[in-house]
Amino acid sequence: MTQFVRNAWYVAAWSTEIDDELRRFTILGDHVVMFRKTDGTVAALEDRCPHRLLPLSRGKRVGDTVQCGYHGLTFDCSGACVRVPGQANLPKSARVDAFPIVENHGIVWIWMGDPTRADPETVFDMPEFSDPNWAVHHGDALHLESHYLNVAENLVDPAHVSFVHPTTLGNAASENVPVHVQTEGEAIVAWRWIRDGEPIGFFKAFGGFTGNVDRWHYYYLYTPCTAVIDFGSIETERQCREEDRGDGVRIFALHFMTPVTETHTIDRWMHIRNAAIDDPEAATRMDAMFRTAFAEDKAILEAVQSEELRPQKRRPLRIAIDRGPLVYRKRINDLLELERTEDIASDPSMAIIYHD
Amino acid sequence: MTQFVRNAWYVAAWSTEIDDELRRFTILGDHVVMFRKTDGTVAALEDRCPHRLLPLSRGKRVGDTVQCGYHGLTFDCSGACVRVPGQANLPKSARVDAFPIVENHGIVWIWMGDPTRADPETVFDMPEFSDPNWAVHHGDALHLESHYLNVAENLVDPAHVSFVHPTTLGNAASENVPVHVQTEGEAIVAWRWIRDGEPIGFFKAFGGFTGNVDRWHYYYLYTPCTAVIDFGSIETERQCREEDRGDGVRIFALHFMTPVTETHTIDRWMHIRNAAIDDPEAATRMDAMFRTAFAEDKAILEAVQSEELRPQKRRPLRIAIDRGPLVYRKRINDLLELERTEDIASDPSMAIIYHD
Amino acid sequence: MTQFVRNAWYVAAWSTEIDDELRRFTILGDHVVMFRKTDGTVAALEDRCPHRLLPLSRGKRVGDTVQCGYHGLTFDCSGACVRVPGQANLPKSARVDAFPIVENHGIVWIWMGDPTRADPETVFDMPEFSDPNWAVHHGDALHLESHYLNVAENLVDPAHVSFVHPTTLGNAASENVPVHVQTEGEAIVAWRWIRDGEPIGFFKAFGGFTGNVDRWHYYYLYTPCTAVIDFGSIETERQCREEDRGDGVRIFALHFMTPVTETHTIDRWMHIRNAAIDDPEAATRMDAMFRTAFAEDKAILEAVQSEELRPQKRRPLRIAIDRGPLVYRKRINDLLELERTEDIASDPSMAIIYHD
Repeated sequence: MTQFVRNAWYVAAWSTEIDDELRRFTILGDHVVMFRKTDGTVAALEDRCPHRLLPLSRGKRVGDTVQCGYHGLTFDCSGACVRVPGQANLPKSARVDAFPIVENHGIVWIWMGDPTRADPETVFDMPEFSDPNWAVHHGDALHLESHYLNVAENLVDPAHVSFVHPTTLGNAASENVPVHVQTEGEAIVAWRWIRDGEPIGFFKAFGGFTGNVDRWHYYYLYTPCTAVIDFGSIETERQCREEDRGDGVRIFALHFMTPVTETHTIDRWMHIRNAAIDDPEAATRMDAMFRTAFAEDKAILEAVQSEELRPQKRRPLRIAIDRGPLVYRKRINDLLELERTEDIASDPSMAIIYHD
Repeated sequence: MTQFVRNAWYVAAWSTEIDDELRRFTILGDHVVMFRKTDGTVAALEDRCPHRLLPLSRGKRVGDTVQCGYHGLTFDCSGACVRVPGQANLPKSARVDAFPIVENHGIVWIWMGDPTRADPETVFDMPEFSDPNWAVHHGDALHLESHYLNVAENLVDPAHVSFVHPTTLGNAASENVPVHVQTEGEAIVAWRWIRDGEPIGFFKAFGGFTGNVDRWHYYYLYTPCTAVIDFGSIETERQCREEDRGDGVRIFALHFMTPVTETHTIDRWMHIRNAAIDDPEAATRMDAMFRTAFAEDKAILEAVQSEELRPQKRRPLRIAIDRGPLVYRKRINDLLELERTEDIASDPSMAIIYHD
Repeated sequence: MTQFVRNAWYVAAWSTEIDDELRRFTILGDHVVMFRKTDGTVAALEDRCPHRLLPLSRGKRVGDTVQCGYHGLTFDCSGACVRVPGQANLPKSARVDAFPIVENHGIVWIWMGDPTRADPETVFDMPEFSDPNWAVHHGDALHLESHYLNVAENLVDPAHVSFVHPTTLGNAASENVPVHVQTEGEAIVAWRWIRDGEPIGFFKAFGGFTGNVDRWHYYYLYTPCTAVIDFGSIETERQCREEDRGDGVRIFALHFMTPVTETHTIDRWMHIRNAAIDDPEAATRMDAMFRTAFAEDKAILEAVQSEELRPQKRRPLRIAIDRGPLVYRKRINDLLELERTEDIASDPSMAIIYHD
């Protein structure tokens, strides 16, 4: 049984990853072929011909249709078969799944569940994407050999920063600073302030601070797979209140997790900043710092994944800093349970249960 | 449960692949050690010492016997143990299987089933092998990461040629030409004529045609694993009848499939031609063209195999051009069912069923 | 069900393999982190944090404690958790296993079973280790892709020498010399003398013999995983009695097998000699000869392992020379049965069985 929530929007790709060519992506364990139609919008189809199972991505485009590379069966962007060479009629069962797509802010979102439920209004957005006082910059697609649940937990966990990123995003001063956790609607928020400390490497390099600063980390995790990390620093003497952190140097690090398989996740990350917004070099320098830090996460998460796949002798220990991850696991389990229940309800073979 | 028919002749190797050395081959999932005896004939034994399981191919030849490389147990070419170092008696159970072999036309055939049923008269042959008006040329041993059933289906399927081999063996003109299928004794035959068309790349390069030609493809598939593809071209103005295609430039492409494992097949291919029979360069040029085309098949078949091993959400779609493959699958299933039934009948523990 | 006897001493490493760094070793399928404490003794802990499963070897040493690299949980060398960052209390279940260690003669021994049973007095020793008339030399850690039972059997099997090592440790003259087997307390002993023969390659190179010699091989196998091979040569004219073989050139080849996984074993080998004891070059030359011979064993054992993992059609054949291995298998099975029985007896959920 997978732990993939299907009725949700996932990031399929950066807009720049998709062009006229047929390209295969793997999302929630399924292969999807994507390409840009002649009108520039993105099409996404099940990447398997229903005849002899050849991936459609091994075939070729014919206008806005896809022709299988084995026997030429051809499908339009709704998934309907429009040609079977060697015969006049088109069998009803000759079709593939088509997946709803929304593209905005340079991000391609896909809906892998029941297409009738896909509501474009529920795609993640935040006002800073469209605000000229903020600079938006797309980063990388980081591949992790790790279950997405482990990657997500790491993104609602400010405590790991002191130990995993001691020279980049954290330092030893914060090791014992407690973490606050609460839920805000769909988001789980975990945060802490480290007051009156030396600036961390990131803000030394980027913010130009010389004296002591107050530093904050707010981790917002939206189920199933979007995280926003609001972090920044401000001179301690300015006595910044929590709600005024826009006065400081503030960065949103966005992480869009795409579960590929049960042991492989892509983390597409980007950042939005309120400082040096006209300086593209600043974005490049930030990318470099993030790459160093995220490589540290990757090493940890892949080692954890490897151990999870081995036999377990003990029940896992839960400690105070696990509150955010525990709330997240609970929400995911509730969603999975809901999807299973609905699958049973909509399965005709189970109809007798609802008879009366 | 494997899908290997055991009571049949399979190509074990080209004659040139076997010499005085002990060499391991894997056929129907079993390891076989083969070598030429001092009289030049080929011996084939189970490649596993019954004592500590070391492959006999890791040992050495002692005359026409094989000595295990671990403790020196020695077997003759009938599979009988003739020496156990350190003891005088030879345990009855000390033996390995020996496999019947037939060698002709540069091909080594092996029988992996009940040796009492191996009839050399039933080995595949065709008169052109021995006819001086035809030139016989051995090609390669092409390895495919694909189940043999998928490879075989491809060899009774003229329709794929237009899409998989558009620049070599086919072209777009034939996409909608229907396929005829019938059975002729042991053979399943699928064929079509493409009349009055431009010559395909193969015959442009090889036949020297300049004007339009009639082109034929006849696929003969013999269960379980031999295919003969009779294809050729002739000037359209000669109005060739089907039975007179020997008047044109005609080539038999022979494919001998050897199932190695459930996901690995060797296709040993060769060709016999009625043109340029004294020109060895012609064979070399044909090899090059075939290699290009068969690499196209290999790419398709391996992608199909990969998808077959993944979860299936739908029943496979069957279309008009599948008649040849469907007859083939039916014949294989009948043979497998027969072998299973006979195994039960010959199993002493099941004897009570046949008591009366 | 594994075939690992847990209540026994195993060689974890040569002393030279362990230093101040956290290093991971895999023993009986379990990961262990080892390092030298500030007092120079060796600590060995379960290599997995009980919180989020990160291997402790990915963390860092803080004095004689180990700090996890993910969230900073810290463990002392008894396995007790001494710090959980972000909270004051230490959960009782926050601990890892610690393994008893004995180090002597340059060898680090570990006890993977019930620590209350670990008796340092039962660690393997032999007087020649401490006798100035003998030269002790540590060899390599040879990795074999083979179950330890197969490696061990090879070390109570003088008969394989003639066939596996014809140019190094054996020769054809001994092929039919019978093997004697008996038990001497904990040891299974298999031996044979080859009288009045040409010296083998090893003693030609090392012993300087020119005429014929009497040669002996005594294989002592101690369950579960220690073997001592006493072999040597003496001039035939001296008419050496079995108990006087110390008069000849005598070598003890010691093999300490460490089961890593069910298909991977490390064989740490060393030798002790009574000739050329002040000549370090002699040890280097012997190492070279042993490496050649053990590479021959490795090739055989890995081929055997590969066959064992495939389907078996026959019952394995047992022959006269198998007596030593058969006694060994019986002893291992008895130990495994005993450990299973004791596990049940100490399992509270099975208490009712022993109620009366």
